[in-house]
Amino acid sequence: METEEFANQFFKKLMGEYDHQQYSHSGIDGHRVANRLAELSRIGLTPEGGSSRMGFSKEEREAKELVKSWMKEAGLSVREDGAGNVFGRLEGKVKGEAAVLSGSHVDSVPNGGHFDGPLGVLAALEVVEAWRETGFVPNKPYEVVIFTDEEGSRFNGGLLGSEAMIGEIDREHMLKLVDVYGNSFEQVLTEYGLSVDHFFTSERVLSEVAAFVEVHIEQGKRLEKEDLPVGIVTGIAGPCWMEISFIGEAGHAGNTPMDDRADALIAASRFVSKVEELPSVVSPSAVATVGRLHVYPNGVNVIPGKVTLTVDIRDIHEETRDELVEKIVLLGEQVAAERGVSVEMNEKTRIMPVPVSEEMQRKGKAAVEKLGYRPYYLPSGAGHDAMIVGRKVPAAMLFTRSKDGVSHNPKEWSSLNDCVATIHVLKNMVEELVK
Amino acid sequence: METEEFANQFFKKLMGEYDHQQYSHSGIDGHRVANRLAELSRIGLTPEGGSSRMGFSKEEREAKELVKSWMKEAGLSVREDGAGNVFGRLEGKVKGEAAVLSGSHVDSVPNGGHFDGPLGVLAALEVVEAWRETGFVPNKPYEVVIFTDEEGSRFNGGLLGSEAMIGEIDREHMLKLVDVYGNSFEQVLTEYGLSVDHFFTSERVLSEVAAFVEVHIEQGKRLEKEDLPVGIVTGIAGPCWMEISFIGEAGHAGNTPMDDRADALIAASRFVSKVEELPSVVSPSAVATVGRLHVYPNGVNVIPGKVTLTVDIRDIHEETRDELVEKIVLLGEQVAAERGVSVEMNEKTRIMPVPVSEEMQRKGKAAVEKLGYRPYYLPSGAGHDAMIVGRKVPAAMLFTRSKDGVSHNPKEWSSLNDCVATIHVLKNMVEELVK
Repeated sequence: METEEFANQFFKKLMGEYDHQQYSHSGIDGHRVANRLAELSRIGLTPEGGSSRMGFSKEEREAKELVKSWMKEAGLSVREDGAGNVFGRLEGKVKGEAAVLSGSHVDSVPNGGHFDGPLGVLAALEVVEAWRETGFVPNKPYEVVIFTDEEGSRFNGGLLGSEAMIGEIDREHMLKLVDVYGNSFEQVLTEYGLSVDHFFTSERVLSEVAAFVEVHIEQGKRLEKEDLPVGIVTGIAGPCWMEISFIGEAGHAGNTPMDDRADALIAASRFVSKVEELPSVVSPSAVATVGRLHVYPNGVNVIPGKVTLTVDIRDIHEETRDELVEKIVLLGEQVAAERGVSVEMNEKTRIMPVPVSEEMQRKGKAAVEKLGYRPYYLPSGAGHDAMIVGRKVPAAMLFTRSKDGVSHNPKEWSSLNDCVATIHVLKNMVEELVK
Repeated sequence: METEEFANQFFKKLMGEYDHQQYSHSGIDGHRVANRLAELSRIGLTPEGGSSRMGFSKEEREAKELVKSWMKEAGLSVREDGAGNVFGRLEGKVKGEAAVLSGSHVDSVPNGGHFDGPLGVLAALEVVEAWRETGFVPNKPYEVVIFTDEEGSRFNGGLLGSEAMIGEIDREHMLKLVDVYGNSFEQVLTEYGLSVDHFFTSERVLSEVAAFVEVHIEQGKRLEKEDLPVGIVTGIAGPCWMEISFIGEAGHAGNTPMDDRADALIAASRFVSKVEELPSVVSPSAVATVGRLHVYPNGVNVIPGKVTLTVDIRDIHEETRDELVEKIVLLGEQVAAERGVSVEMNEKTRIMPVPVSEEMQRKGKAAVEKLGYRPYYLPSGAGHDAMIVGRKVPAAMLFTRSKDGVSHNPKEWSSLNDCVATIHVLKNMVEELVK
């Protein structure tokens, strides 16, 4: 499909579902939002109608430049830090106040969707557009942010821009990185118009940041089930990845009696079956998933001698997430003992969950209720820039309903009604924060 | 290691464990058997001390020629059929009687052991050597057999020589085969000194064959557990391979609540855990194994959308094997229904099991008891030439204890005491059959 044709159809589909009368008010304009989503969709458009704007790519750069032009049109003063993070700033009435920030990212996974990232950036910008029309002037400064490389498709990492901004990035580690094309971090930065030295000057004086609010699509089905356009995020789950190997004894599938086996796959299967019972024991927001599993030697007529699997364990509270990790480790040991096989466990990743403060959740609730929606709280299972920023600064997130929960896929969709409803909530919330 | 040095050490190891006084009697000579096993071990010796004599290779050819020379020395008249099967015949006293056959194969899997195949051929030949010393003359003719390409490493098949002898081989299928090096069946035969037309004339008039007895290493640990040198095979299990896919729904491991998942791996795990309970319900000799399993997409943070696995189901009785297949199919459907996923099942292989007749088992028992051993019955989980021949002719198998159950590996080992004990049993048994 031609880029032109796709962007037109994408825009038409958004507008076709839109209830202008109900949603375009208080200076917020769904037509503008749809138009900007469609304009961004052209950049890195894939043959499947998806978006490929890898972090530090010319597509991410092009998308940033386009948003920067809109920021300038909206009267914001635009600057870019050494990590390529873009800040479009509106000064407040009161001098010397810390700024309220809102935004997200414009990079995508390969062949991803057109809402994951751009919606959060355009929502933050639409608040400024609305104020231009309503004449609202904030007391505190307000900044629209675009973080660099949130998805991490480039270096198998992600969240680089927000990490650089809060100063939680390791120079030595970064300099060793090689991207998916075999280029060093330095080469990638240079090609992107940045430099290594400048990159590590991106840390902001965080006393100058009062709060951060990120709008993002849910990438799940909870809001759809609740029939709600928008939800208040209670926290961002940090994953712990445990790699677990069950080691039994390989043998001939025909010549080894059933009662003389040490089948690693049966042990692994018992483990997998029981893992799903544990999250609800520790917390209603906890989840645990075995997504990757390898059998060795994986021959049809050979009793498996070894199985290696990874458990992805998440919760928004560190205590309960770690409690779940312990229970899962215990289960692994228990199953191994019962089945007469040995077990090896290695922690591959342990990222701190970031709960949203009760105060920020209350502000979200008030903003939702002001619009007449039922406040609904949900955890975020995936990582977001708000998880990083939230380590140092009060942060909140608003989720917009995702159609069928699909994300990281060309089929990713949120209706313009839901997008605009979320922008109204964001505007209410930000207006409270910048007071 | 030098071939010379290996063969010497192999011979010394065999003899070092050998109790000449107890085992070398009635014309059977362990020293000769050890010497011949060592001579054969030179052909296709691998750097790891294993055997690589692929079917239709020059190494298999060389091994056959060596055994043929021994057959001739022992006074047998030697012929080779169109499939390269070798028959060393001793005429009986009574004219016109059907012959009793014994033997096995001399090909091996890549880097296999030195007992799997050669022991059966040398055992059959040692019976003739014994008769030369004891002066025993059979009433019926007796033939020592070497079947071609039992292991099937060449065309991913196997049992070709015995199939050709009983006339159960499909010309059209064979002509389409391509070997692991990309050669056609015709090219392989030509290089081996055979021709396609001649190959398909190998079918024997089976009324001229009274019985077949094959000595083979157990390739399992049952005899070791029973502390017995030799066992009587009750039947040769035919495998049925069922490929089963559980299809759920992939999703983000963080954003999908535990109670809103259709995790294909949990379904597969429940299935695998329960499969092991079923064989004992249908038969004491039945086994079922999930050896191969693949998860899709197999990402750490993605709920598995699909799992494909293969169940290897075996028993020596077709009724109970098929009953087990049905129970496993039912289990798959049941688990899928319970877990809210769909299931697809495909039969990939279904080979008929061959039970050993009660009469042949009784003859084996008598031969074992005559030597003062406790008769012990066990199924064969793996396929053997006796499984093919047994479709048309009364066939029996004797298993020799395998150290640690290891086979298809350079570590494959059976003590010379156990090998010779089995040869004594074979001799007793054959002497009954040729009466």
